[in-house]
Amino acid sequence: MPSDPRSEIPPRSGTAFELRKGQTLTVIDVRGEQVADLLAFDREDIHEVISSGRTLDYASRIYLTTGDLLYSNRSNVMLEIVADDVGRHDFLLTPCSKDTFRIIYGDTDPHRGCFGNLAAALEPYGVTEDMIPVAFNCFMNVPVDGTTGELRVDPPLSKAGDTVTFVAHRDLIIGLTACSALQSNNGSFKPIAYEISG
Amino acid sequence: MPSDPRSEIPPRSGTAFELRKGQTLTVIDVRGEQVADLLAFDREDIHEVISSGRTLDYASRIYLTTGDLLYSNRSNVMLEIVADDVGRHDFLLTPCSKDTFRIIYGDTDPHRGCFGNLAAALEPYGVTEDMIPVAFNCFMNVPVDGTTGELRVDPPLSKAGDTVTFVAHRDLIIGLTACSALQSNNGSFKPIAYEISG
Repeated sequence: MPSDPRSEIPPRSGTAFELRKGQTLTVIDVRGEQVADLLAFDREDIHEVISSGRTLDYASRIYLTTGDLLYSNRSNVMLEIVADDVGRHDFLLTPCSKDTFRIIYGDTDPHRGCFGNLAAALEPYGVTEDMIPVAFNCFMNVPVDGTTGELRVDPPLSKAGDTVTFVAHRDLIIGLTACSALQSNNGSFKPIAYEISG
Repeated sequence: MPSDPRSEIPPRSGTAFELRKGQTLTVIDVRGEQVADLLAFDREDIHEVISSGRTLDYASRIYLTTGDLLYSNRSNVMLEIVADDVGRHDFLLTPCSKDTFRIIYGDTDPHRGCFGNLAAALEPYGVTEDMIPVAFNCFMNVPVDGTTGELRVDPPLSKAGDTVTFVAHRDLIIGLTACSALQSNNGSFKPIAYEISG
């Protein structure tokens, strides 16, 4: 483990890195109320990627927390949540993008969003835009009305220093952002930190 | 329009076909309580495909019905729901597969499921297994508990002869099944019919 294991992702940006089988990844909401979109691809075959549809089906739950497994599109376990200070994350919505800002916010010169940041960070690993699925959105608070099906994007429940920790069940390429959508982050853009250990 | 426009998909099977821009596709639950998984790919570039994550984000709702738009992974409108007898469909869960039956049902010699049926039907169009996302699951009834996030797969609300109708906003390749999972179809496997017009 390096002497300073903590890395920081500046506001409205993203990064990508390898996470080896057995290593843990801790995502840290440095200032509170900040979302981090997380993607995981198999290191040996990047066409295997985390799948919200498989994961939610196997969990029989849309809100995941400690003990829950994140499955791939081929039904293999990619990550396991092993610690969670917050207990509310989203696995329904795609990363915010130019189109999100255009369609939902009406922006005329939209930011590239988490989608563009993930695409740029993952491009050296061979990931193309069309290969980016629904991300596991750490700290994103999306309550669903069980009767009408309506969903809202509410302020995250995370406070400064809160973390969620994953262990890798195989060698992975991780994409991770400090989310770029105002609504998801209670109106301000903040950094995200992360630590790898093991 | 052909003289008999109705086609039938036998129980636990699937098919694929072209749907031109402006044409309508009506999915018919012939006997009631039967799910049909629907996929739509752009005919000119099959890497563009319906996206649950984009669609639910733009709709701000997990249950879709008449008037709702189904978006692609590139945020283009693929299909619009123009008529709906039932009002309850699922867009959270991936097509049932060998892995679904192994992991959820504990089957030792599992059926290939909607996933295998869709992969086989779409293979002539160049679609591979890894390109199959969350399907729009017509008539599938997946209530979500808004507090705990728990989801159930309940019997469909559809009765014999109920339909849901889509209009294509671009030229598409459609994959469609008569779903193979016992739980989704209240314990029996039944056919699905469909009609194309326009």
